[in-house]
Amino acid sequence: MYEKEYLMLPGPTPVPPRVLRALSEPLINHRGPSFKTLIEEVTEGVKYVYQTKNDVLILPSSGTGGMEAAIVNFLSAGDKVLALSIGAFGDRFATIAQTYGCIVDKVDFEWGTAVDLNVVKAKLAADVNKEYKAILVTHNETATGVCNDLKGLSEIRGDHPALILVDSVSGLGVMEVKTDEWGLDVIVTAAQKGFMIPPGVAFVSVSPRAWAAYEKSTAPKFYWDLGSAKKFLEKGQTPVTPAIPQLTGLREALKLFREKGMDYIFAKQLYLRDITRAGAKALGLKMLADDAVASAAVTAVWAPEGIEAKAINKKMREEYNVVLAGGQKKLENKIFRIGHLGYVQHLDILATIGALEMTLKELGYPVELGAGVKAAQEVIMSRKGLL
Amino acid sequence: MYEKEYLMLPGPTPVPPRVLRALSEPLINHRGPSFKTLIEEVTEGVKYVYQTKNDVLILPSSGTGGMEAAIVNFLSAGDKVLALSIGAFGDRFATIAQTYGCIVDKVDFEWGTAVDLNVVKAKLAADVNKEYKAILVTHNETATGVCNDLKGLSEIRGDHPALILVDSVSGLGVMEVKTDEWGLDVIVTAAQKGFMIPPGVAFVSVSPRAWAAYEKSTAPKFYWDLGSAKKFLEKGQTPVTPAIPQLTGLREALKLFREKGMDYIFAKQLYLRDITRAGAKALGLKMLADDAVASAAVTAVWAPEGIEAKAINKKMREEYNVVLAGGQKKLENKIFRIGHLGYVQHLDILATIGALEMTLKELGYPVELGAGVKAAQEVIMSRKGLL
Repeated sequence: MYEKEYLMLPGPTPVPPRVLRALSEPLINHRGPSFKTLIEEVTEGVKYVYQTKNDVLILPSSGTGGMEAAIVNFLSAGDKVLALSIGAFGDRFATIAQTYGCIVDKVDFEWGTAVDLNVVKAKLAADVNKEYKAILVTHNETATGVCNDLKGLSEIRGDHPALILVDSVSGLGVMEVKTDEWGLDVIVTAAQKGFMIPPGVAFVSVSPRAWAAYEKSTAPKFYWDLGSAKKFLEKGQTPVTPAIPQLTGLREALKLFREKGMDYIFAKQLYLRDITRAGAKALGLKMLADDAVASAAVTAVWAPEGIEAKAINKKMREEYNVVLAGGQKKLENKIFRIGHLGYVQHLDILATIGALEMTLKELGYPVELGAGVKAAQEVIMSRKGLL
Repeated sequence: MYEKEYLMLPGPTPVPPRVLRALSEPLINHRGPSFKTLIEEVTEGVKYVYQTKNDVLILPSSGTGGMEAAIVNFLSAGDKVLALSIGAFGDRFATIAQTYGCIVDKVDFEWGTAVDLNVVKAKLAADVNKEYKAILVTHNETATGVCNDLKGLSEIRGDHPALILVDSVSGLGVMEVKTDEWGLDVIVTAAQKGFMIPPGVAFVSVSPRAWAAYEKSTAPKFYWDLGSAKKFLEKGQTPVTPAIPQLTGLREALKLFREKGMDYIFAKQLYLRDITRAGAKALGLKMLADDAVASAAVTAVWAPEGIEAKAINKKMREEYNVVLAGGQKKLENKIFRIGHLGYVQHLDILATIGALEMTLKELGYPVELGAGVKAAQEVIMSRKGLL
């Protein structure tokens, strides 16, 4: 009661209280020196999480806005792109490219699986004239809870000139991305996922190769013009009015990251994933993603035969105050998704598994109460020091 | 991590976010019209929870300050009082009376049990000259998790002129108290318990009989002078500077109470108690209090033979982010206490029991993981509509 929810979504995530407090700082002039200090500080902090020396621009938008920026800044109508889709957000990235007139060679992988790099290898090998201007890929497919191997993809690209444009909206800050070391040209992410701040800002990193492509891009852009954003950033400003509370919140979230260290954050996220999967599997539930490609941000679980996923989520929300995500598009009402990224801890997962047991039992699925919790507890107890 | 704790204390309790936000309202002049509106509104709201038409005064103090006010306003040096103690806070009430020169006839009941009303009956019957000016009683003994029967006590008092002075610091707003119907003269409570606001204010109700005693009291008082508080309240003020944030927070908490209704609150508190006890008992743990007198605010549990209660609380806090209370005075290191009042819900208890299982197992106590959780789940599932 009283606003109390276990918000187990793959974004927005719960926000740490000290970040919430930082959202309430007095507003400042976005053309003044305080803002210059702020934008420079948070840009440096975001680069730390990206592990990059590339430019990173912060936009007042959702993650989708960042994806649109990734397309319109580096591509033009008529450009051929290889779009690798493993789910609803991979589809969206391809759709945006199509919307701007790109010739999209889209490869769909079964939902719940990762990109098969051999397929990409064959595609690139067949592209003898090096016509692909870009490869579009989802780092973490929020719709299915599957994580793609960005390092492997970059290796397979080799010296093919195609840019790698990455939607890492729900990946960055959750699972390690070595932007520079892996040679990833453009990576998009958003505030309300691994960064644990409320929605409202997106981040886009741009490699020197991508900037070269920017010079050639003829796609129409004004709001999403990253060249303009870069010029303004050089004087400590943004081209349009920035979402200031998210930036003061981000400053605080980045302090948290630095205090804990990114290695800790990544280890904790894998820990939360493993607790979730162990608990759900012990109830006899089937995971959509194989362990080998399972996301550290979100776990998609098949609803048991004969039970609607929506009924599970409704009961979880109404009776147990646990908010889960549903399935999207062709997975609608077939899966439910447990988010475990951001400001979530082991006991939140334990409570979620406990609520899931009660929910399933009440919906007629045979559950031994406590069995999922026990499996989750065993994972919790097996790794120490992660809170 | 990041400030995230399961604060399972018998106060301070977790505070609902909307109450936390209300603490941050701009400060106002405590001698102006806005404060008059505020103090009148919250005083009415507190009376609603007290179920009283008596005066209720709000003091900038802890609960102990309210207890001291209950003594110094209605008693004098040399007054004989009957102090009924079932634990550390009963002892404290008696000590305050002694400090101000009262002749305290103290009756101690075994810690973990309630006041035996037959003993009180005999005491009053033996007081043929009606020398007792007051009976001091603890409603809910925070130190042991035992609740006394205030209605029964009042009935036993009958027409004996002794005032009943009640320490309900951790009881009011958690368990029903019918101040007027039960003829309770003075009841003290504090903010950080059932009212779910941060510590800083105490409330004292005063019956007409108690005001008559006030007129005769010669105990020294300035800060605690309730007559002065009443006079100031009549003009919408307080004699000393009030703790304004707690009052704006209280206004919001009282809105929550009215929205849910007190019947709901009381039912929910009993539900949380029963979930806690079922979970702990299923692990073979012994409760300090019998079910019949068990508090809806806090449950005291004996540490198993050979395990220090402090080791349990340390592990719970350090590894599971669950904050429990320890034993006080003679129960130190022998019991641990799980608070379940205020802004706490069923899944918080479930997570706490889950963490307790892991903690005990790691400390060498034989635990079947999930067994306590299962018993807690069965209670949760048996009563619907309480969130």
